[in-house]
Amino acid sequence: MPELRIDPIIGRRVYIAEDRAGRPSDYGAAVSGGSSASETPPTAPAVRGNCPFCAGNEIHTPVAELTVSDASGQWQCRVVPNKYPAVRIDRPIEGAFGAHEVIIESPEHLLDVTRLGPERLAAIVRVYRDRLRHWAAQPGIRHGLVFKNSGCDAGASLEHIHSQVTAVPFVLPVVERELAAAERFYGSQGTCIFCDLLQRELAAGQRVVANHDAYAVVTPHAPRQPYEMWLLSKTHAARFDQLADDAIEPLAAMLLDALERLQAVAPGCPYNLLLHTAPFDDEHAASYHWHWEIVPRLAHEAGLEWGGGVHICPLSPENAARRLRRNDE
Amino acid sequence: MPELRIDPIIGRRVYIAEDRAGRPSDYGAAVSGGSSASETPPTAPAVRGNCPFCAGNEIHTPVAELTVSDASGQWQCRVVPNKYPAVRIDRPIEGAFGAHEVIIESPEHLLDVTRLGPERLAAIVRVYRDRLRHWAAQPGIRHGLVFKNSGCDAGASLEHIHSQVTAVPFVLPVVERELAAAERFYGSQGTCIFCDLLQRELAAGQRVVANHDAYAVVTPHAPRQPYEMWLLSKTHAARFDQLADDAIEPLAAMLLDALERLQAVAPGCPYNLLLHTAPFDDEHAASYHWHWEIVPRLAHEAGLEWGGGVHICPLSPENAARRLRRNDE
Repeated sequence: MPELRIDPIIGRRVYIAEDRAGRPSDYGAAVSGGSSASETPPTAPAVRGNCPFCAGNEIHTPVAELTVSDASGQWQCRVVPNKYPAVRIDRPIEGAFGAHEVIIESPEHLLDVTRLGPERLAAIVRVYRDRLRHWAAQPGIRHGLVFKNSGCDAGASLEHIHSQVTAVPFVLPVVERELAAAERFYGSQGTCIFCDLLQRELAAGQRVVANHDAYAVVTPHAPRQPYEMWLLSKTHAARFDQLADDAIEPLAAMLLDALERLQAVAPGCPYNLLLHTAPFDDEHAASYHWHWEIVPRLAHEAGLEWGGGVHICPLSPENAARRLRRNDE
Repeated sequence: MPELRIDPIIGRRVYIAEDRAGRPSDYGAAVSGGSSASETPPTAPAVRGNCPFCAGNEIHTPVAELTVSDASGQWQCRVVPNKYPAVRIDRPIEGAFGAHEVIIESPEHLLDVTRLGPERLAAIVRVYRDRLRHWAAQPGIRHGLVFKNSGCDAGASLEHIHSQVTAVPFVLPVVERELAAAERFYGSQGTCIFCDLLQRELAAGQRVVANHDAYAVVTPHAPRQPYEMWLLSKTHAARFDQLADDAIEPLAAMLLDALERLQAVAPGCPYNLLLHTAPFDDEHAASYHWHWEIVPRLAHEAGLEWGGGVHICPLSPENAARRLRRNDE
């Protein structure tokens, strides 16, 4: 039986229709998401000759803005301007003004960021924070986004692990909607809507995927995709660029845990990792709460999504959470 | 050089970045859209044994709500309840209440609706109107959507040509945003924002794809996808379910023209065909204007779209219109 879910933050409408996972398809299992994906993660050579992100091929990318190296001097992470940017810092502020960078996350030709392990991932998370911090200080920049496209169906053009940072002179519409909802909630309840949501989710338990000391991962009440997850900090904070040094390691461990769980239930599944953070001012310090969204791209967006703005998800978040927790039980 | 475009109706932000069409890819040409697709339309047998939409396999679909037959008695179009619905008419009105139907558009196993020709397509367009008219009269139903998912990347699970109708007890969010913008414009300018847009587009000409007596097709100023097209009526009308009989044939001819142009520049390209129409009341009769959107699905939506709500389109609408007009010149 289909069920209508309404997101408690922004009111997004999602139909949960698990029956749909079993419908016939001329195109293979692309729309299922209802059962574990059978695809296995592709293997790849240590370095690939024509990959512009591999060590030895640095000449094919612009000069690095920032490099993180290991004790031997080998770079582990390079931040380079996007060679095919959506926005540029030399454009007029009312035009395509902004920053668009690529964070190359390994010198080896890795396809899955969980292969990095906790320490190397912590170094990447630090780079995420530091690049936002850098752009927050630039004139004209108001807001930033960190995102990872993993896999072709998630919009990646290159498979070598990487993320992107954009910084723009306006508030990004996805976060703008959340800011407005968070302001309204704060005005009437005197507290943060995300803190409230997390507290209720942890108490109920059925959508909790993982619960560490400082962070938790839940599946949202109204997910757009099977296995969609939100990672929230238990401590209230609006701006990710203000993250404290000692919060980086536990956050990387939590991200790694969530992404490993996704690999376990849907090996090789394409996904977007998305940071939602407040604009670079303190206007929303009390009401907004930065968080990460992990959005697998298992169900193709179709006419109802594009023409109606309503989503259909073929897996309930309660069943998703149960599967994502499986190895714990 | 990337360029920022802002949609004049709802303010959607799109970066036009034609450079991106040339970026390297590990996944083939999936993200290009900048040059003509090389894929050719697949051919298929007249009837396929295991296709639930083919003549002879009617037992695999629910009983038809409506059937259109030719002079010999062979059905040409069948409307059946969706076997895997997002909404159901037997659900409580605050739940997943509504209608979800499939319009099977040919008894033969056709993969491309332009193969139907103008007369058969006109019969389909009449069914679109009639199904909306039917649902508009049902208690609790407030709004409807007609959409076609063509191809796996556009969310289709079956390739046999078909469309879908949904009818729901709320105003669909995509149209809700347009209604609000149209109301504001009407309040300040005393005219319909879509009539105004069409008049300006026809006068400027650079984004005009086709211009018939009663209808025109343009590429939007801020498209989400390469070759995105909007089909507008030159006569103001808010509700598609109120379309007059004599307006059906010219509309089908215009739709056919637009879809044939898309096939010519991007053969076999996946697309969504989406009807935007006012809710089933007369509240927006003066300000809103029904229209069709044709949204090719050539560029994968990625982190900037999902995490930021901002689009990147690798082909400008002016270049898209020029290519779509090519055979006229």
